[in-house]
Amino acid sequence: MSEYKVITISRQFGSGGHEIGEKLAARLGIPLYDNQLISMAADELGYTKESVERADESSLDSFMAAYSVTPMSYTNFISTASYMPSLDVRVFRKQSEIIRSLAQKGPCVIVGRCADYILRDKADLINVFICAEKEDRIRRIAERYGLTEKKAAERIRKTDRERKFYYETYTGLEWGSIYSHQALLNASLLGIDKIVDLLETVYRA
Amino acid sequence: MSEYKVITISRQFGSGGHEIGEKLAARLGIPLYDNQLISMAADELGYTKESVERADESSLDSFMAAYSVTPMSYTNFISTASYMPSLDVRVFRKQSEIIRSLAQKGPCVIVGRCADYILRDKADLINVFICAEKEDRIRRIAERYGLTEKKAAERIRKTDRERKFYYETYTGLEWGSIYSHQALLNASLLGIDKIVDLLETVYRA
Repeated sequence: MSEYKVITISRQFGSGGHEIGEKLAARLGIPLYDNQLISMAADELGYTKESVERADESSLDSFMAAYSVTPMSYTNFISTASYMPSLDVRVFRKQSEIIRSLAQKGPCVIVGRCADYILRDKADLINVFICAEKEDRIRRIAERYGLTEKKAAERIRKTDRERKFYYETYTGLEWGSIYSHQALLNASLLGIDKIVDLLETVYRA
Repeated sequence: MSEYKVITISRQFGSGGHEIGEKLAARLGIPLYDNQLISMAADELGYTKESVERADESSLDSFMAAYSVTPMSYTNFISTASYMPSLDVRVFRKQSEIIRSLAQKGPCVIVGRCADYILRDKADLINVFICAEKEDRIRRIAERYGLTEKKAAERIRKTDRERKFYYETYTGLEWGSIYSHQALLNASLLGIDKIVDLLETVYRA
């Protein structure tokens, strides 16, 4: 693979991981990739953005209901391709191709999408996971989406459950574990700006 | 508190956390404090080093056997001082005083001893926990102490159990959790030298 530095950011919903990615990319003058990847994959596959998104991360509920599976049983499951809803796997493969080609084109920040796993053999990968205290995440999501704290807490639970399922399904690794990432960073204790500083210094080192 | 920067390193046994602390302190030209703290506490209390060590981290087995407690029940336990073996609490308090006074004297690296918790209100604290893959830890301990892999694995289990008990007893926080530390760093994925580089850049920032 190329020698461009790539920073992958996985994150709990509401932890500020996306904001960290944006600030970092802006400061380093390099691109940030996130849900755009879905659109790019969709375009190349000839699907509409909406149908791909439905088949993507957000398909958890219908998928689990239809197949009565848990993330861990699904990990075995995925190796027997005939049982897999084909769109999911095609989208994931396409996204993986796109992520690998972006990482070869130049330095960048990639948020989510199992990019840390897809690029795991890359020498110059910086791979972090951002966490925050539950109260801080609830406050953040409630403010951003104009929700009550109760609704915000519900959305956090649901979104993190979907992210965990998506990540563990495609990687076979544990989501949010230190054994799946080079570093876990606590945004409540460090603060968003200090994490941006930290990642900038690591990137420039 | 003073404005000196202090780096606290908590670590799994065999993760290389102590080596990271040594290399970092040498590179920054600042002192490293670890088990010396026991001796200092012992001297001030007028106990021999050996009796303090026995009453310290390594007292877990006899303590748990005598009181039939688990770390979490013991956390409640500790608030009722009359049930506590008095030497433990006296040593911990003395160590806490010493750690606070060292942190006010100048910048330093402190390995273990719940220093992250004792200094938690300090503005310029850098507080990390070092992990590594089990196989790497076993290899490291087997080499260092000339043990078989089986014996090394046993010693790791025992030592980490003691560290967990010690940390959780005195802090009420979960040992090795991202919610107890600013950052968890994976020495197997990052490598010891890269972690030293990283902490150096954070310290100098």
